[in-house]
Amino acid sequence: MSRAYNFNAGPAVLPLEVLETARREMTDFNGTGMSIMEHSHRGKAYDAVHAEAIANLGQLLGVTDDYQVLFLQGGASLQFSMVPMNLLGAGQAADYVNTGAWAGKAIKEAKKVGPVNILADTSKDIPTTMPDFAALPYTPGAAYVHVTSNETIAGTQIQQYPRTEAPLVADMSSDILSRVFDLRQFGLIYAGAQKNLGPSGVTLVVIRKDLAERAAATLPTMLQYRTHMADNSLYNTPPTFGIYILMLVSRWLLAKGGAAGMEQINRAKADKLYAAIDQSGGFYRGTAVKEFRSIMNITWRLPSEDLEAQFIKEATALKMSGLKGHRSVGGIRASIYNACPAEAIDALIAFMGDFQARNG
Amino acid sequence: MSRAYNFNAGPAVLPLEVLETARREMTDFNGTGMSIMEHSHRGKAYDAVHAEAIANLGQLLGVTDDYQVLFLQGGASLQFSMVPMNLLGAGQAADYVNTGAWAGKAIKEAKKVGPVNILADTSKDIPTTMPDFAALPYTPGAAYVHVTSNETIAGTQIQQYPRTEAPLVADMSSDILSRVFDLRQFGLIYAGAQKNLGPSGVTLVVIRKDLAERAAATLPTMLQYRTHMADNSLYNTPPTFGIYILMLVSRWLLAKGGAAGMEQINRAKADKLYAAIDQSGGFYRGTAVKEFRSIMNITWRLPSEDLEAQFIKEATALKMSGLKGHRSVGGIRASIYNACPAEAIDALIAFMGDFQARNG
Repeated sequence: MSRAYNFNAGPAVLPLEVLETARREMTDFNGTGMSIMEHSHRGKAYDAVHAEAIANLGQLLGVTDDYQVLFLQGGASLQFSMVPMNLLGAGQAADYVNTGAWAGKAIKEAKKVGPVNILADTSKDIPTTMPDFAALPYTPGAAYVHVTSNETIAGTQIQQYPRTEAPLVADMSSDILSRVFDLRQFGLIYAGAQKNLGPSGVTLVVIRKDLAERAAATLPTMLQYRTHMADNSLYNTPPTFGIYILMLVSRWLLAKGGAAGMEQINRAKADKLYAAIDQSGGFYRGTAVKEFRSIMNITWRLPSEDLEAQFIKEATALKMSGLKGHRSVGGIRASIYNACPAEAIDALIAFMGDFQARNG
Repeated sequence: MSRAYNFNAGPAVLPLEVLETARREMTDFNGTGMSIMEHSHRGKAYDAVHAEAIANLGQLLGVTDDYQVLFLQGGASLQFSMVPMNLLGAGQAADYVNTGAWAGKAIKEAKKVGPVNILADTSKDIPTTMPDFAALPYTPGAAYVHVTSNETIAGTQIQQYPRTEAPLVADMSSDILSRVFDLRQFGLIYAGAQKNLGPSGVTLVVIRKDLAERAAATLPTMLQYRTHMADNSLYNTPPTFGIYILMLVSRWLLAKGGAAGMEQINRAKADKLYAAIDQSGGFYRGTAVKEFRSIMNITWRLPSEDLEAQFIKEATALKMSGLKGHRSVGGIRASIYNACPAEAIDALIAFMGDFQARNG
């Protein structure tokens, strides 16, 4: 079997070791005579998986007693609503920064719940960029400040998180645990698992516990963070297989040196690819301004859309998958999440050189 | 490897053939060089899985053009809220039948949204039972009538669905596709996948399309059925691996003769187990009244709690898993969903006879 070079934007590449473990344990988890999928979420076998996933993520993210790790469902898209439903009290407003398509969706849902201040809007800027987060007009007394850590489509990333008076809330779906950050700077972070952590269908939330008490008891039980906090993400049946894979990925991340180790690896991969773009004499043009370039989603253009289509076609034939830019912006995008191996980057760079030599 | 006899209430046993296919394809789905978990939810490989899952379920459930199959997240627990949020218009009330713990949870969430009429309450009855659905005082002009098809904890099951004027909504989590029913009798059905259809983390919803139009546009986008209808359950990233397993289970169900084939198999399994209980001379006592006995969750007691504990202990040693009754009611429960093989029932009955011979 030859593995593809997987540059998918999400769901995305997983560590081969993780898949091999899942394969080995598929019909018989730990000698129990059944798959982890077939185990009760209230039984010993799954309980150990659940506890290890929480413990490992706690270690990886630096979770302290005043925070809690939650595994929810519905992806970041449901968090776009749960955050304001839980944190935006009557008479308050929330601050949002519109840096692209994902931030825009979060804003749309928040507006259904209460007043929203847009501190900056770079969502239409070309080249894609982000504002200066240190200099934004944060609203005194805001319920919270919401930012999108990494814009998967635009290929931009917050380089330094602001220190805000109001609780900082971040959608980290596309760069969670790809680099070091200080959790104590945040009130709540959330991430769909399907880019850096595991399969789709699990949403990681880390919440500062006191914030969960803001929610009205009249909210649907499933949409209150306090429900899932009180029952350690076992109020109802969690997506057990997804959490199992996430647990295996968390082991893999710890073995790689955690967030610090991954950041080093990820920066090296991204630097190499950006260098190939920048040193192409203008044949390849990065679409994000340099100081906000993402180390997760590398976006670039070719001299024409025809050449872009040709590039993708030839790459696909070489088992390089997922290089087509999002349909809303076009161009090329290589998503190089934690589990994307260095060999995939090397193969892509070699192909880029070859393609330019033939078409430049 | 020896497979356990899995009587778990959910997550529950899956067909071994399904797990073996998942194992075989774990690192290389259809020669693509990646797991189905690593494929984009907007790519060709996953698209075929998604489409086949919908088509197979459509065939199995008799879905016609005026209905739509949806794959959502959050389990039945989130449907307890989504149903009233979408279907309960201003000035209307909804009819509910309280037949046990699960119906009770649905009622609790509906009351947060609007007025609820409780048509009958058998939730505290011992032996566990259900009302006569043909004779309930349905409310003229009700927004809908909500029933719980099978009470997993109580071991009771609706034997014949009522024909109601208002749209009939059913939580079928614990007996979906275990028997034949006429979808045209329903406005909406929903089921967490983790009992009869696949792993936890996928919720099947089948909705009569016109009902989705009742929802206010101010509802969170993710909580509107119309969102998921419009995008064929691809508005956001679906739980792709769970849907893949569900698709494999749907193939297995078709090969077994669909709902009619499964009903025959399931009734034979349940009849055998109930016969063993009824013919034990009172050593084993069924906890549900006979005319509402479930063919999915068989519940019974022993002469003492000490003997029940001993029974479970010895069964566990024989690799019979999940026989402990729900903590709220005690006793013994054998969940014998679609994928529970006849051999497991035979092994259980043999053990029951042996246990009684030694302790009766």
